[in-house]
Amino acid sequence: MPGSGKGELAKILREKGIKVITMSDVLREKYYKEAKEGERLMDFAKRIRELYGKGAVAKLCIEKIEKEKIVAFDGVRNWEEIEEFKKIGDVTIIAVHSPPKLRYERLLKRGRKDDTLTVEGLMKRDWEELEMGIGNVIALADYILINDSTIEEFKSKAEELLKRIL
Amino acid sequence: MPGSGKGELAKILREKGIKVITMSDVLREKYYKEAKEGERLMDFAKRIRELYGKGAVAKLCIEKIEKEKIVAFDGVRNWEEIEEFKKIGDVTIIAVHSPPKLRYERLLKRGRKDDTLTVEGLMKRDWEELEMGIGNVIALADYILINDSTIEEFKSKAEELLKRIL
Ligand SMILES: Nc1ncnc2c1ncn2[C@@H]1O[C@H](COP(=O)(O)O)[C@@H](O)[C@H]1O
Repeated sequence: MPGSGKGELAKILREKGIKVITMSDVLREKYYKEAKEGERLMDFAKRIRELYGKGAVAKLCIEKIEKEKIVAFDGVRNWEEIEEFKKIGDVTIIAVHSPPKLRYERLLKRGRKDDTLTVEGLMKRDWEELEMGIGNVIALADYILINDSTIEEFKSKAEELLKRIL
Repeated sequence: MPGSGKGELAKILREKGIKVITMSDVLREKYYKEAKEGERLMDFAKRIRELYGKGAVAKLCIEKIEKEKIVAFDGVRNWEEIEEFKKIGDVTIIAVHSPPKLRYERLLKRGRKDDTLTVEGLMKRDWEELEMGIGNVIALADYILINDSTIEEFKSKAEELLKRIL
């Protein structure tokens, strides 16, 4: 979910030399080429899914794999994407969870251009993500990393988990 | 999710003197009175929701509250139930998560009469729960307790959390 800290996990993976494919980057690449005038990224993603199936963004990401043995995908949104990944190898799902209150605080502080800047707006965005099916992926995750205290603690939890499973 | 260990959390809450309302018990009470011949509990639950709204089971449970200041509801399945609880007080959502593989192992071992006894059957049941909307509740939980090692470790994590929030 937005503001959970999954970007931090991606950073740690990269530091370990693992290729991380950021799904929103891959989506954005297509968006810049094919989006309609004024279409939001999220609406473009919905349209792509309607046109090419719910696993469409995962398929685009899979094309980015070269010869890596281990690849991380940052930004899974639904179970159909997981099904795509399963077609090409073993899949381990790691979810990152933070309490909504904390996520909203972080997002309001971060104030990224494309982030909404009211709690109401953030809740609306949460529900857009949930409607895509992200809750199912979290519920069926192999591991959930809890990010509810300091960044240092989160990093050490993540390191510990990665040591166990890589 | 089935086999996650949420029953253990309910036990700990009870030991602390907190009233726990088991949503499936309340549902079952109505089921015994009103279910159609051969109707499964889960299908009855779906029907009740179609008839009386998605928060219907929560409404039934709320009727069971007497004068308690703190009540725990064991078995939330969708966000509309949370909305019902929010109408009557402050709500804190605690999810219990275990890796699916571990849940299936536990459920196969437990072999409760109403548990399916194949991994395929368990996966199907998972998806029935997910379709009710439980993934959204997990994604938006205030706390997620991870139950992926021993029961003792889970108990101590739960105790620690409850000390913090009660
Ligand atoms: N809040 C609820 N809404 C609908 N069905 C429920 C609910 N709670 C329990 N059930 C049903 O009762 C079964 C056992 O629930 P539980 O005791 O929570 O594992 C579930 O598989 C559901 O079919």
